[in-house]
Amino acid sequence: MAIRERHLFGPGPSNPYPEATDALARPLLGHLDPAFLALMDETCEMLRTAWGTSNARTLPLSATGSAGMEAAFVNTVHPGDVAVIAVNGLFGQRMCDVAARCGAEVVAVEHEWGRPVDVQRVVEAHPNPAIIAAVHAETSTGVRSDIADLGAAKGDALLITDAVTSIGGIELRADDWGVDIGYAGTQKCLGVAPGLAPFTINDRAFERRVEKPRSWYLDLGMLGAYAGEAGVGGAPGKGQRTYHHTAPTAMVVSLHAGLARILEEGLENVWARHEAAGAQLAAGLQELGLEPFAAEGYRLPELTTVKVPDGVDSGKVRGYLLERHGLEIGSGVGQYAATVWRIGLMGHNARPDAVLLVLAALKDALDNA
Amino acid sequence: MAIRERHLFGPGPSNPYPEATDALARPLLGHLDPAFLALMDETCEMLRTAWGTSNARTLPLSATGSAGMEAAFVNTVHPGDVAVIAVNGLFGQRMCDVAARCGAEVVAVEHEWGRPVDVQRVVEAHPNPAIIAAVHAETSTGVRSDIADLGAAKGDALLITDAVTSIGGIELRADDWGVDIGYAGTQKCLGVAPGLAPFTINDRAFERRVEKPRSWYLDLGMLGAYAGEAGVGGAPGKGQRTYHHTAPTAMVVSLHAGLARILEEGLENVWARHEAAGAQLAAGLQELGLEPFAAEGYRLPELTTVKVPDGVDSGKVRGYLLERHGLEIGSGVGQYAATVWRIGLMGHNARPDAVLLVLAALKDALDNA
Repeated sequence: MAIRERHLFGPGPSNPYPEATDALARPLLGHLDPAFLALMDETCEMLRTAWGTSNARTLPLSATGSAGMEAAFVNTVHPGDVAVIAVNGLFGQRMCDVAARCGAEVVAVEHEWGRPVDVQRVVEAHPNPAIIAAVHAETSTGVRSDIADLGAAKGDALLITDAVTSIGGIELRADDWGVDIGYAGTQKCLGVAPGLAPFTINDRAFERRVEKPRSWYLDLGMLGAYAGEAGVGGAPGKGQRTYHHTAPTAMVVSLHAGLARILEEGLENVWARHEAAGAQLAAGLQELGLEPFAAEGYRLPELTTVKVPDGVDSGKVRGYLLERHGLEIGSGVGQYAATVWRIGLMGHNARPDAVLLVLAALKDALDNA
Repeated sequence: MAIRERHLFGPGPSNPYPEATDALARPLLGHLDPAFLALMDETCEMLRTAWGTSNARTLPLSATGSAGMEAAFVNTVHPGDVAVIAVNGLFGQRMCDVAARCGAEVVAVEHEWGRPVDVQRVVEAHPNPAIIAAVHAETSTGVRSDIADLGAAKGDALLITDAVTSIGGIELRADDWGVDIGYAGTQKCLGVAPGLAPFTINDRAFERRVEKPRSWYLDLGMLGAYAGEAGVGGAPGKGQRTYHHTAPTAMVVSLHAGLARILEEGLENVWARHEAAGAQLAAGLQELGLEPFAAEGYRLPELTTVKVPDGVDSGKVRGYLLERHGLEIGSGVGQYAATVWRIGLMGHNARPDAVLLVLAALKDALDNA
């Protein structure tokens, strides 16, 4: 079977950092091997840096980012709790579905897609919510919202933040911003294959948690001991592991390698690299005559959205790019499926040469597809 | 950092088939890439063979085996449903916890650990259960139970079967045996790293499913379209995918490679290879004077349990094996933690040379640890 090599310039997964790919193929370790547990500890510690948190309970959940979303709600929603959820794209919508299944009374604050979250409207939506939730970087629209402002205005509510497309790409400071629970994915700016959900929860949220959540697999009360969190909140001390489930060891070792690469470069340098790549792409797209979709001032450098020009067949262009150049860009989502493109420059792909390639390929496709 | 190489002769993960490891490091594919979707289709088809099923809804769930257990119950337990669960080890116990969180009225049928499931006691435990559940191969004790007999006696109940440690190692015929829902893991006899839960559900069970389960991530109604199941039960036709979550593409491609290796050898040949390796190990352990733990006639060839000899420190032996020989065997579980060893010969490790090595190393440890 021929092996396909792809330029992954869609909304994720992105091409992993080479170190992360190499780590996947290393000799496999057992999930209780001291050598693995040391790597898990280091992974959790590096994740704290990536999140901007000192939360002891910071770990990679053993499933994809959407399971991180589920873990956030299933562990914190008590029956009938009011959850105010900012909806400015698909992942805000998904939060509403997940929270409702967990028994929340959901107050959805709808926004026009392509616009950031309006903090004022969100905090005024209910006088006393148990939970406020918002997406930091909406993967469906390429929009950044201001989580710090939301954190400052949250009152007594717990703030749940989706950082799937922001972590490792743009500024993220969970503790400074008042994020109580955050979840992410590995396959975007962290530059690792999909399969894990980096997760963090602070003491305040953990103390209010559901004692026995409906999900066994995502029960944070049991997972703390699995990941060897420092001895807080009645959990065993560091190194005193209890068996919960078999850790996906290859994926964790790969995440370890990706995070090590990022921290070696320096987190702020990595953010700057994404910023520069995004600016270079935006300028190039403007030269091609393409109009941005996301609101000005809130555009994600790691995921740029543009409108498909009138008269151009979106699918034809994407198919041409994939077949001729092995290059993937994303379609839009929902009502924008055929009228928006999403171009990601995430993790290892946030590079000047990657920008040149995607611009040249897109020009070729617009001319010849 | 020095890379550790381990002989994984514990209860799993096992050393993957080389093809599965190589596949992990292949250039990453996007989760909607036609090349990936073709591999996913083939993976589901090969899983059908491994399960012994023609169920359209056969797919790798994007989390570890324990999430497969959760998916089985969360999709089938309606509030107050009676679930009769055979408990002859840790994983039967876990089923009770998971089923109860899903709202089941659990009737646990307790067995002595080390013994197989007593089908008669299970079917007589309740006159009309909605669900009967049992573990095919108990990883905690090394015991095989007779699922065919349970399937023949299940009546109108749905039969849920844990095949985590049996799939790809010993005879498994889900359809012939009357299994309605089955879940497994990749890291045992399938010879792939941990991280996915091969899952199957037949039409009968799917029709009785919970319309909107409490888990969004594991909602089989949504997952069918994700995996491109053949057009049954109102799902889109093959190839008509809908986006649910980002598939862990590297892990799926690795599972594809592991399954291809198994099916190239021939499933029955692979079973015979496990049988032979287990018999060779059992004979060698007897020569070493070690006494089996699992009941005779129900011993798993892929996971052999023996009693730790009187006066021997289990942890010291295991530590010696790991440090001196890079070789992992498992401790016992629960009350048998210090008094039982679990020695796995799974997937790629079900080989004569592996048996020689583990026996020689164990002899060395017993003499010198």
